[in-house]
Amino acid sequence: MPPSPAELATLEAFALTLAQAAADVALPLFRARDLAEINKGNASRADVDFDPVTEADKGAERAIRALIEAHYPDHGIIGEEYGTLRPDADFVWVLDPVDGTRAFISGLPLWTTLIGLRFKGRPILGLISQPYLKEVFLGSPLGSRLVTAEGSTPLKVRDCAGLSTAVIATTDPHLYSGDEVQAFNHTRLAAKLIRYGCDAYAFAMVAQGTMDAALETGLKAWDIDAIIPVIENAGGIVTDWAGEPVGTYGGQVIAAGSPAVLTEALAHLSLAAKPADPH
Amino acid sequence: MPPSPAELATLEAFALTLAQAAADVALPLFRARDLAEINKGNASRADVDFDPVTEADKGAERAIRALIEAHYPDHGIIGEEYGTLRPDADFVWVLDPVDGTRAFISGLPLWTTLIGLRFKGRPILGLISQPYLKEVFLGSPLGSRLVTAEGSTPLKVRDCAGLSTAVIATTDPHLYSGDEVQAFNHTRLAAKLIRYGCDAYAFAMVAQGTMDAALETGLKAWDIDAIIPVIENAGGIVTDWAGEPVGTYGGQVIAAGSPAVLTEALAHLSLAAKPADPH
Repeated sequence: MPPSPAELATLEAFALTLAQAAADVALPLFRARDLAEINKGNASRADVDFDPVTEADKGAERAIRALIEAHYPDHGIIGEEYGTLRPDADFVWVLDPVDGTRAFISGLPLWTTLIGLRFKGRPILGLISQPYLKEVFLGSPLGSRLVTAEGSTPLKVRDCAGLSTAVIATTDPHLYSGDEVQAFNHTRLAAKLIRYGCDAYAFAMVAQGTMDAALETGLKAWDIDAIIPVIENAGGIVTDWAGEPVGTYGGQVIAAGSPAVLTEALAHLSLAAKPADPH
Repeated sequence: MPPSPAELATLEAFALTLAQAAADVALPLFRARDLAEINKGNASRADVDFDPVTEADKGAERAIRALIEAHYPDHGIIGEEYGTLRPDADFVWVLDPVDGTRAFISGLPLWTTLIGLRFKGRPILGLISQPYLKEVFLGSPLGSRLVTAEGSTPLKVRDCAGLSTAVIATTDPHLYSGDEVQAFNHTRLAAKLIRYGCDAYAFAMVAQGTMDAALETGLKAWDIDAIIPVIENAGGIVTDWAGEPVGTYGGQVIAAGSPAVLTEALAHLSLAAKPADPH
């Protein structure tokens, strides 16, 4: 049986506690002069494959995992830095302690902590936290809202008649390859405005109704799971590039605030749709 | 005679007052549901030529100009939205009330207010203000520092041995044309990491030592004048793509934290160097 409203409220409060624990580790390292990074990617193609990880990523995930183990020892965990634990549990937390590590090491306050919760394989609760801005975009069947020190404001996508009046975002146009290049370019040229470099923060902008769509390729589960409840409970839609629900492994993703924008974008993107890579 | 330290301190305090006046107008409109925008660009190429202006841009510039007229009626003004006044005065204020209007209308907190001051044609004082983050990056011969509600912190560029270890930024890779495309791509591929979508905020990151270079083309005076004192007094360098001082009209610009990064980038960029368009 899915969690009751009371149980959801308890889980939301716990997720906010996890976000604060991650912030306590990551924020002091933001803009630190001596922050070391390790490249997890292919160093021979630095522009695309530079995939840094820092002590902020690792320390924040350790802090989150310790709290889950202490409070919900039967829940599962899927985390970017420290792998998978009890993936077949009813409740599984899906963690990206620092999404946008490239922004983090550049000093740009658009990195986020992503914390999602699956129930029986389906994302039901999630948050996008930006500690420097003191913003948490939180979503569950109890509603999506922006949580700050001043309180809580409902999040609602905006209506948009189509791509020609849409503000869209993707993190890096050079991350697309093969058929994706043309699919992306057709989408970009049909839009009113495209913004780059936002990682998960762009999805928060879709949920709050200041952008109309965000699209990415090559996402992992921890890049998108937490986002889905924030978008859906703000009235938006998240699919893969074939227009199907995003699967367990991420892959090609689009989130949109209005069906019209989604339909027009998918007309381009579906031509390059491919299954997610589970590895 | 250039302003004395005491006069500079007075002018710095006045520039901070101007930034606050602009913030008082622009910040309440940020993320507002009903913010209208007008496209100043060529609507037939929406992806590149969408050049929006809002009441935030216009109202903030009006607020700044009113204060200058009241306190320094013999100073000149060059502003993005309301044109040029007394351009031959010894002191001329150069204003971009909202740099990054595209970020502003997308809800992204990386737009800035740029306020620069020329003395006899040369930028001597400037600030980059981000009101949502409550950050002002201020530079003059008295030093560059980050001014926040908590106080003032010195800004210092970081050393970087060369492009292969450099974090660089440009706002939109699709803004380059002709020879610039290859020059930009060579620079991008030689760098460790490139970030997009930051407008003037990227230059603030160079001044604070979390990025190593920022480059742009097609800048106007109000896009770059305010930035030059912030970078230079933090130990960095600003030139055009020929390696010469940035002229009165903006154009192709690069700011770097270390001479090594600048030299390597200019080896690519100088091949596409061209004079700034005064119009």
